[in-house]
Amino acid sequence: MAVAISSIYEPLTENKSIELVKRLGLFDQTSQLTSKEIGDGNLNLVFHIQDALTKKGLIVKQALPYAKVVGESWPLTIDRARIESSALMKQAEYVPDLVPKVFYTDNTFAITIMEDLSELQIARRGLIEGKSFPLLSEHIGRYLAKTLFYTSDYALDPQEKKRLVKQFSNPELCKITEDLVFTDPFFDYDTNDFEEELRPSVEKIWEDTPLKLEIAKLKRKFLTEADTLVHGDLHTGSIFANRTETKVIDPEFAFYGPFGFDLGHFIANLLLNALSRKPENRIELFNHIHKTWEVFVEEFSFAWKKDSIEAYATIPGYLDHVLEKAFEDAVGFAGCEIIRRTIGLAHVADLDSIVPFNQRIAVKENALALGSELIRKRETLINTKAIIEIFTKVTS
Amino acid sequence: MAVAISSIYEPLTENKSIELVKRLGLFDQTSQLTSKEIGDGNLNLVFHIQDALTKKGLIVKQALPYAKVVGESWPLTIDRARIESSALMKQAEYVPDLVPKVFYTDNTFAITIMEDLSELQIARRGLIEGKSFPLLSEHIGRYLAKTLFYTSDYALDPQEKKRLVKQFSNPELCKITEDLVFTDPFFDYDTNDFEEELRPSVEKIWEDTPLKLEIAKLKRKFLTEADTLVHGDLHTGSIFANRTETKVIDPEFAFYGPFGFDLGHFIANLLLNALSRKPENRIELFNHIHKTWEVFVEEFSFAWKKDSIEAYATIPGYLDHVLEKAFEDAVGFAGCEIIRRTIGLAHVADLDSIVPFNQRIAVKENALALGSELIRKRETLINTKAIIEIFTKVTS
Repeated sequence: MAVAISSIYEPLTENKSIELVKRLGLFDQTSQLTSKEIGDGNLNLVFHIQDALTKKGLIVKQALPYAKVVGESWPLTIDRARIESSALMKQAEYVPDLVPKVFYTDNTFAITIMEDLSELQIARRGLIEGKSFPLLSEHIGRYLAKTLFYTSDYALDPQEKKRLVKQFSNPELCKITEDLVFTDPFFDYDTNDFEEELRPSVEKIWEDTPLKLEIAKLKRKFLTEADTLVHGDLHTGSIFANRTETKVIDPEFAFYGPFGFDLGHFIANLLLNALSRKPENRIELFNHIHKTWEVFVEEFSFAWKKDSIEAYATIPGYLDHVLEKAFEDAVGFAGCEIIRRTIGLAHVADLDSIVPFNQRIAVKENALALGSELIRKRETLINTKAIIEIFTKVTS
Repeated sequence: MAVAISSIYEPLTENKSIELVKRLGLFDQTSQLTSKEIGDGNLNLVFHIQDALTKKGLIVKQALPYAKVVGESWPLTIDRARIESSALMKQAEYVPDLVPKVFYTDNTFAITIMEDLSELQIARRGLIEGKSFPLLSEHIGRYLAKTLFYTSDYALDPQEKKRLVKQFSNPELCKITEDLVFTDPFFDYDTNDFEEELRPSVEKIWEDTPLKLEIAKLKRKFLTEADTLVHGDLHTGSIFANRTETKVIDPEFAFYGPFGFDLGHFIANLLLNALSRKPENRIELFNHIHKTWEVFVEEFSFAWKKDSIEAYATIPGYLDHVLEKAFEDAVGFAGCEIIRRTIGLAHVADLDSIVPFNQRIAVKENALALGSELIRKRETLINTKAIIEIFTKVTS
């Protein structure tokens, strides 16, 4: 299934990235271009190209045929560049203001040229610094409602939906999620990474078979429920924002999955940030969680009533059923995400940057308790207030 | 999504079918071949080729680029020949004794050459005649357990599973099921076909919004839950059998769908036949239903324990959860199938051949009540006995 790398693939350099954007006519002939590689070098090359005269900029992103995490390196399909650019363009049909504009793609070289968002900040970084993003949840609620509704069976001709399911078949990146989100953290596997002080709590999770049964059910949903085109990795590090704008980036994990998937991951990452804060500074994050769900319900319901092609759409209770299922699944997925970001391979700075050490451990203990409770209680929670009640109980 | 018909596609004739099998060396040079077209002409050409000397036979099946039902004709992808032959070959990996052998396939001409099963009888025909097929349920239980388990995420490498999901993407035939099984019969649509005497009961179904909400949920499962490679149309007319052998044919509707899909359709068609019988002649069919589920559980559980690659497979309760979900879904799918075979476009001879007319109507009323009850009660039924209890209640 891995896409073979074409023999003509080669990584760009700063000079070559300038040549490329010039050749494509993306800048005036008179422009004075500079290029700076600003990626972290683990997965992609990211060149920030700027015209010294107009200050106009562009991003040239190129997938590398491998991934590096914590010193390890393994081959990874460059087909993810196709997935990412195709997802951005598909999402732009529904929320053009909430994703970066794509100007050019080349699947052979795994290159995407897109809008420069350097005037915005990665939301995770800003939230850790205590910044406010007043419109974040309104934007993400709408982003989710529109992209998820309009790529589902409720809005699409069935043939077009099945064409998209094939287009966004993403086995290699789904395997990463399958392992790192749904499996490894819940077993004593080598990929896990946690402080020795957490071991007693981690071992309790590994031995908690009723909890693991619930995680197995959630993993099954991830593997089989092809509801809609999900972003696939919607954490706060995949969002650029400032006080008025929000842009969702990096949908290289996009695939046809359950309605609640992205919602769960976004909520989980807000909760992880809230865990890292003093109680008096959490309210803004709680409000973001309430608002995300509120806007999602509002926009999804509006689209459903306006544009659903489903014969059963007007049957009383059907929309509610779809929303309730999305919510329940989201709560469960949020629980898995919180736990894996605490003890799995890929951590979040929100927790790892906490000092002193003892406090970091205490917060991580809370994260494990919160994640477990969300998974266990997901069927009984009826709204986002109930999520915050569990948060409060676990942290007090 | 429709596969264009190649310019060199042309329908076979009896003579050309003989030329083809000779050219392929499927018979000795000395053979004296005859060919007879035995298809119903609505979807496929089916040539029965036989050697007058050895009596050895073969079937040459060719998909036609259209479908005819009740006089209407509409274009239909010949890609279904690829789906059918690929599914037969995939299933043969797990149950070689329960599917016809495939000797040759040609996707351009939509031709499959396969084992001659003319010594067996179509199970529906035999059941209507009151014949016994003592091993039918044991065989179908095993067929379902093995084919469904081994093409699911529980047995397959995730990349291979996703490759198969794409290979068996079957939008045109899934659309037929979507419309004719899950939608049209439950609305006042032109495709429906029922006796005027049934109208009051049919209109009650059309107005029963709580029932329709449950059907909407089942339709959603059909559209989105890509558990495993299902046959897609497993009624008793898709099964050749005698007292010792069973062969499942015609998987042209195969796609990645829910575990309970085929099981529900098979059970529904046994129930439809039972409805057409006098009470004292039903026990054999009830026993087939019990046995199908019993063998399915046994064989699926055996395969799960022996060959599951799922890390959570040994978690107590997970196998039970998967089986319970499959059963609940199967009961719901059975309800939809029973109703659509009574009032939708495609009927079954089991009901339509009942005389006198009054009795036919009475039985069809029972079918509508049975189908509705199965859909409504599916979450509370715990085993096949509970299905038969509902049958008995509805018919007494």
